[in-house]
Amino acid sequence: MASQQQQQPYVAVAERKQAELAAAIPTEWRLPAHIIPAGMLSIAESITEGPKQYRRVNVMEIPRTCGLLSSKELEITEKYDVRGLVAAMTEGKLKAEEVVRGFCKRAAIAQQLTRCLTEPLFDRAIRRAQELDDHLQRTGNPVGPLHGLPVSVKDSFHVEGVDSSIGLSALAFKPTKVNADLVNLLQSLGAIIIAKTNVPQTLATLDSCNHLFGRTLNPLNRQWTAGGSTGGEGALLAMCGSMVGFGTDIGGSIRVPAMCQGIYGFKPSQGRVPFGGQESGQLAGKGRIALQAVAGPLARSVADLAAVMAEIVPRAELFGEDCIPGYWPAPSVPISLARPRNFTIGILKTDGLVTPLPPITRILDEVAQHLRHTPGVEVVEIPVPPVLSKCQGLAGRLMGVDDGSTMLDLVEGQGEALIPWLQGRMKRSKALTIDQLAQLQARRAEVEKEMLKMWTLNAGHTRRVDAIVCPVAPHPVPELDRYNAVGYTSTFVMLDYPAGTVPVRPFAESDLELGKTMDVPTLGSWDKANRKLWDEKTVDRHVYLDSPLSVQVVTPKLHDYELSQAMEIIDRAVQGGRSPIAKL
Amino acid sequence: MASQQQQQPYVAVAERKQAELAAAIPTEWRLPAHIIPAGMLSIAESITEGPKQYRRVNVMEIPRTCGLLSSKELEITEKYDVRGLVAAMTEGKLKAEEVVRGFCKRAAIAQQLTRCLTEPLFDRAIRRAQELDDHLQRTGNPVGPLHGLPVSVKDSFHVEGVDSSIGLSALAFKPTKVNADLVNLLQSLGAIIIAKTNVPQTLATLDSCNHLFGRTLNPLNRQWTAGGSTGGEGALLAMCGSMVGFGTDIGGSIRVPAMCQGIYGFKPSQGRVPFGGQESGQLAGKGRIALQAVAGPLARSVADLAAVMAEIVPRAELFGEDCIPGYWPAPSVPISLARPRNFTIGILKTDGLVTPLPPITRILDEVAQHLRHTPGVEVVEIPVPPVLSKCQGLAGRLMGVDDGSTMLDLVEGQGEALIPWLQGRMKRSKALTIDQLAQLQARRAEVEKEMLKMWTLNAGHTRRVDAIVCPVAPHPVPELDRYNAVGYTSTFVMLDYPAGTVPVRPFAESDLELGKTMDVPTLGSWDKANRKLWDEKTVDRHVYLDSPLSVQVVTPKLHDYELSQAMEIIDRAVQGGRSPIAKL
Repeated sequence: MASQQQQQPYVAVAERKQAELAAAIPTEWRLPAHIIPAGMLSIAESITEGPKQYRRVNVMEIPRTCGLLSSKELEITEKYDVRGLVAAMTEGKLKAEEVVRGFCKRAAIAQQLTRCLTEPLFDRAIRRAQELDDHLQRTGNPVGPLHGLPVSVKDSFHVEGVDSSIGLSALAFKPTKVNADLVNLLQSLGAIIIAKTNVPQTLATLDSCNHLFGRTLNPLNRQWTAGGSTGGEGALLAMCGSMVGFGTDIGGSIRVPAMCQGIYGFKPSQGRVPFGGQESGQLAGKGRIALQAVAGPLARSVADLAAVMAEIVPRAELFGEDCIPGYWPAPSVPISLARPRNFTIGILKTDGLVTPLPPITRILDEVAQHLRHTPGVEVVEIPVPPVLSKCQGLAGRLMGVDDGSTMLDLVEGQGEALIPWLQGRMKRSKALTIDQLAQLQARRAEVEKEMLKMWTLNAGHTRRVDAIVCPVAPHPVPELDRYNAVGYTSTFVMLDYPAGTVPVRPFAESDLELGKTMDVPTLGSWDKANRKLWDEKTVDRHVYLDSPLSVQVVTPKLHDYELSQAMEIIDRAVQGGRSPIAKL
Repeated sequence: MASQQQQQPYVAVAERKQAELAAAIPTEWRLPAHIIPAGMLSIAESITEGPKQYRRVNVMEIPRTCGLLSSKELEITEKYDVRGLVAAMTEGKLKAEEVVRGFCKRAAIAQQLTRCLTEPLFDRAIRRAQELDDHLQRTGNPVGPLHGLPVSVKDSFHVEGVDSSIGLSALAFKPTKVNADLVNLLQSLGAIIIAKTNVPQTLATLDSCNHLFGRTLNPLNRQWTAGGSTGGEGALLAMCGSMVGFGTDIGGSIRVPAMCQGIYGFKPSQGRVPFGGQESGQLAGKGRIALQAVAGPLARSVADLAAVMAEIVPRAELFGEDCIPGYWPAPSVPISLARPRNFTIGILKTDGLVTPLPPITRILDEVAQHLRHTPGVEVVEIPVPPVLSKCQGLAGRLMGVDDGSTMLDLVEGQGEALIPWLQGRMKRSKALTIDQLAQLQARRAEVEKEMLKMWTLNAGHTRRVDAIVCPVAPHPVPELDRYNAVGYTSTFVMLDYPAGTVPVRPFAESDLELGKTMDVPTLGSWDKANRKLWDEKTVDRHVYLDSPLSVQVVTPKLHDYELSQAMEIIDRAVQGGRSPIAKL
């Protein structure tokens, strides 16, 4: 096997890329070998080996204990939210340079423990921070409303002068000459991009694993998936290696890594955040005719998500041809002032295709219970729309309208093997005809029309559900390469409903229900596969202990601000203001 | 020829349809034969004969002089705007029944003079008006904010229980069981649909002419086209046979008939007005993958357009899966209060593909001059974006991504001949592949990105152009079947910019410039064809005398409210509040 791989051009490219990445981390930011827990596996092994080869290791405390970060750097990277950090820099209490340096150092540490990065941009980030400090000193004014904010972006976003390889050797060492529209927008706001982050081979899996950068590990527990395709962001943000990360989501790629790391993810509607200027490995223009992925943030709090959305949304139409005028009051209007009636939150327990496993149903019940005790909130149970069970299949067909050759040509051109999860799943197929494609989109319109009814409580169209709470996935954070149906997330891309992940609490001993089996009938093959994740004959349920249990929050199309409000309401109701990360 | 047509099934269907239409007009609403000016031609002749067979006849005064309308009915149909009429009904000063009856009668008169209708809905409209009157009397409340407003819709919109034949015999006598989403929305507001209106065969020409209903004639002058594809609305509204009409626009089908009749047309952005529930004769789902037509209103004033948009836009998302949340202050906020700075209007003189004929350039200059003298307005000249000249071709290619067989099968199935203008222009072709389609959409995204720059006056993205004024067409209202390039209108569907038609003044003697030729170089084949409309060797320029000269107003994507504001500013600047119709 090894000798066979040696003959393939991608191996040398991967080695060069890994050397380049390692060299970008200054010697003084390298963790002593004894600090890195054993059993991280090599990059090659990380691709092929499963969870059994990993030990249950939580690396979340290492940045605090390793000794590389000063107490001020720990404070900078842990104690601020986005608005507080920007205010501290704008008011001169902190230098942008020390803030950015602190986050770069912490990102470097995260990289050494989780393989979350692809392109560290530490040098240029620190230089830019110095420019910002100079500007502030010279003019008395910040560069923009996110002056000095350290952010990170998924590898797919173009950043001038570096690769957008998305983990493919065919795309490595081909630095782009342009910035993604979102990168231009962020930079105009004063934000500083400190790194690009890891993704899965082909971007089409929910484990972030490829031959160039290896597998991103979940800092909470290496046996759990870090999720994908924005998995590098998930790990980096959980470890406080960046303030906000930007990913993309077509099947769940923002919301799933947020769930896997117990942080917050926000998949906007189309048109809120510029998407253009990314490497997708796909046929250009495919999103326009099929299913369009969306860009959005991940962060450690709803407030941080809202802080960046409030600056991006009103300006998005100036930067991206795919964006529209947007309204986002900043700071957010208190719910009690914003609306004359109760905020109505619906509980949607299942998609009718895959019955959630018991801990997922329980967490929904708990959230509903918390909300029932929240003043100003009304909770209603949403009858499962019959057409909802068709959405996963429809979204899947929309993702596969072409013959798949653009991506596979890239992979095979350098002799890369598909990563194990993709073997047998990704293959060349026959492209649809124009008539078949139109038919598929006509079906989608029918489904969208039918789904409108979910938001109306009476026939007069006057009484609306403001937001819905449902599972992110029908199962807890699974072990590596075991993520099941993506219908709970892909559905809301197909419907273009904004949707976000809110972590609720860790999986507890009482969630194990050892010996107890599910007593509802199996619905079909996806449901059957899902139950294997709970079947004590195939899984030791103890693997889920302490994993973050999250819910998904969804609002109608382009009600992105209301999604942020709903996430805040739910977060406050269940967390009481405490960070769920700290509890894990 | 006649005997050959007799053999085709469509002839009998057309005769039945015409008889049905005629029977829907009560005897007492029929014009005496001597009132109808001679030379209207038969339905069959109206399709094949050109302008030379028609005389220069203006029928605009006939409703006032024919004696069928009482003085109160004349007042009802001429003296109110939308808000005033609804207020009069809501306050009990007028009965909905007398209002609706008056408009139905006037629509019947318009039909007898212009062939503008397809499905008169007079009986049910009057019954519905009686229900509204009862409701108001019983409850003290109007049914909705458009209580009793008589409106009309293009034949393509489904209205339960009647045909959506769009002028095709294959679709005749197949009444639909559902309402279009817009029809449901209008009815929920209290509006009453009094008729459906004529369109061109295949909906793909700019003269509204088909074998079922004949050719809609321009009430200002039968030798001029009434425009299309919403041509029936253009004629009906110009004759005050309806308060507001709803059409659709993919290549100019709202804005062109507005121009041809000297009224106002508003093509919104996608998502502002529900489009679903129409007969297009096209492959279902085609709009989603190619170019999507949009629905919007035509009316006799900017205020009337704004009055209906203000009620539709905020509710559209509840009725159409293709709609989004919308903001539209009602009544409109005075410009001076709405913005802290000057309203910046750019003048765009050409699309770089077809040079406008001299009277079109002159009218733009006049509008610019009026605006320069308008307080609070700043006028700037817009450099022609180089990519603009590519837009007409790109829009055309997007309209033709399939093989065209859905429409041609409908036409040919009943043995219909293509109308003369379509012969040689509409044919079956080869559908694109998925890869070609994606490539076309990728090109479109590039063009959209490039066009973003037109709206920014400086590199910092802070100084914006609020609206642009440009031609609706590069020529005046032409004779029948002579409309040239649609690039000036189709471009803004492809870019999804809202765009409207504002009439300015009639074509005057001084616009003739007899003996003077254009001295700028010809740009290409479209430009060459356009000049034939001004070449005294091929046209007598006197044909344009008194024809309405209009401008097009355009704002950035989804700035529909700002379009309404800009149209109001321009209308006030050039009209000084007088109706341009009255002047014609």
